[in-house]
Amino acid sequence: MFEYNDENLKGWLQNAIHAALEAGEIISAALQKQRFTESKENPADLVTATDKAVEEFLFNHFKKCYPEHKFVGEETSAMTGSTVGQLDDVPTWIIDPVDGTTNFVHGFPFFCVAIGLAVNKTATIGVVYNPKLRELFYASKGHGAFMVTDPIKVKVGDGVKLTGAPLPLPDTLSHALIATEYGSSKVPSVLDPKIEIIRKIITNPVAGRGIRSIGTAEMHMCLIAQGAIDIYYEAGTHAWDVCAGAVIIQESGGQVFNWMSDQPFDILERTIIAVRGDGTVRHEKAPLIKELESLMIYIEYPRD
Amino acid sequence: MFEYNDENLKGWLQNAIHAALEAGEIISAALQKQRFTESKENPADLVTATDKAVEEFLFNHFKKCYPEHKFVGEETSAMTGSTVGQLDDVPTWIIDPVDGTTNFVHGFPFFCVAIGLAVNKTATIGVVYNPKLRELFYASKGHGAFMVTDPIKVKVGDGVKLTGAPLPLPDTLSHALIATEYGSSKVPSVLDPKIEIIRKIITNPVAGRGIRSIGTAEMHMCLIAQGAIDIYYEAGTHAWDVCAGAVIIQESGGQVFNWMSDQPFDILERTIIAVRGDGTVRHEKAPLIKELESLMIYIEYPRD
Repeated sequence: MFEYNDENLKGWLQNAIHAALEAGEIISAALQKQRFTESKENPADLVTATDKAVEEFLFNHFKKCYPEHKFVGEETSAMTGSTVGQLDDVPTWIIDPVDGTTNFVHGFPFFCVAIGLAVNKTATIGVVYNPKLRELFYASKGHGAFMVTDPIKVKVGDGVKLTGAPLPLPDTLSHALIATEYGSSKVPSVLDPKIEIIRKIITNPVAGRGIRSIGTAEMHMCLIAQGAIDIYYEAGTHAWDVCAGAVIIQESGGQVFNWMSDQPFDILERTIIAVRGDGTVRHEKAPLIKELESLMIYIEYPRD
Repeated sequence: MFEYNDENLKGWLQNAIHAALEAGEIISAALQKQRFTESKENPADLVTATDKAVEEFLFNHFKKCYPEHKFVGEETSAMTGSTVGQLDDVPTWIIDPVDGTTNFVHGFPFFCVAIGLAVNKTATIGVVYNPKLRELFYASKGHGAFMVTDPIKVKVGDGVKLTGAPLPLPDTLSHALIATEYGSSKVPSVLDPKIEIIRKIITNPVAGRGIRSIGTAEMHMCLIAQGAIDIYYEAGTHAWDVCAGAVIIQESGGQVFNWMSDQPFDILERTIIAVRGDGTVRHEKAPLIKELESLMIYIEYPRD
């Protein structure tokens, strides 16, 4: 076990907040450029450049500050084809430089930089910053989750404490606002069950209040922490899609699981189901999760 | 034909903008109340009260200002079971007091008051205000579409002129960000084709960049006018879901049609397909619409 204390944790969190805001500046600058880009430029290229620039900035930043830590980024993994599988007890920064890349290219306002820190294989710090909406979310294990609007200089403890929502989490899906994603996989073994689950949710006698899809896992998770969505599920996520958000949800009083599992949330598993908090402490899985799981079909993915 | 001139139009638009901002105040007040509501209160009741209060305010407002005009509101129609079918040449205010009711109850940030004016059966004025994001959109036929952030006192002509996006509208679905809704209908003749269309979009060789669902037609349409979404389609919409947005899209240089129709957009038909503008004038249906229509299955609804 890697030993750490509250002081380490606070220092890492403070550092990650600064890094996220600085990364947000890089993304915002690219966004400005994109708005005035000539049509000849390929929007996909522009985004890849931004993704890479942000990841490189964060890699160098954390390498310099914490040479003894490890680093996993979406772009690096995509380039090298490596997975997160080697995760051990050493603190590991797990980063999505731009979560919601497609939204970023198109100007759809949900995209963010996501910085997670796993210690002893457990999501321990989460920082998510949406530079378009200028919303910062941060949390560290045992110290709560917070949201800062229009962040400039942020000190740990600043902002509004997140607790899900004042109203109780509904006990039945019929009162729940649900979020999920179709994803882009055309593989029948992945796409068919995804569509079948959606059909089952809609045709279920109790149904739900509606299904939302905004195209970024981390922002869905921040909406859960704010209480704007009751329940979120997705299959095919990677560690960098969920590491930061998992801490933010847990620290806001919500719950995060892998599909159909009672074990503690494993960021290397490729499925997620999460509910918001409502101010009450739960020792068991929320009934809402159990009900949604009764409509689900397990989808097999290789571990990260 | 009902005769009107630029001066009438400007007066009506100015009036509708003021009314939308005032309606937004009513919604915001309810939102505050909702946040601190005791759990015993049924969120669904609260929303119905807000819907009704806003519709009543707007009905009385327009009745007083324009006694010779007609008025159609979502709530009134829902209560009386009446449809919009009687639409004639007389200017008719077509209103959704809260579009995105479920989002409003849950705090998901996309909901709005939508005020449309149909003259000679044609969507002629559109005003959409999201009091949560504090974003106002307005347009009148022949005079452009505009967006005002943090609106307080707004004069016609204020704000940023909307033109879709600077990049050309993609010619193929493979580069397009798509928006649609699952809706809540469990009727197989409605649900099955909806799900089949989504499956066809995802499994199509060219596919698309992704599918988004935010739970309000009018806000989807404002995102089209801003250029944040390339193409939007939905079945089962009512006149009050699309009247305001249609003018805003058309005046931003985008196109709005009923599914698989080359006729001018009819707000009483229950299907919609729309693309964003890109600064070019099109005399024909955008190729993107034709391509999406090739994947669609027509869904039959009774007219409004």
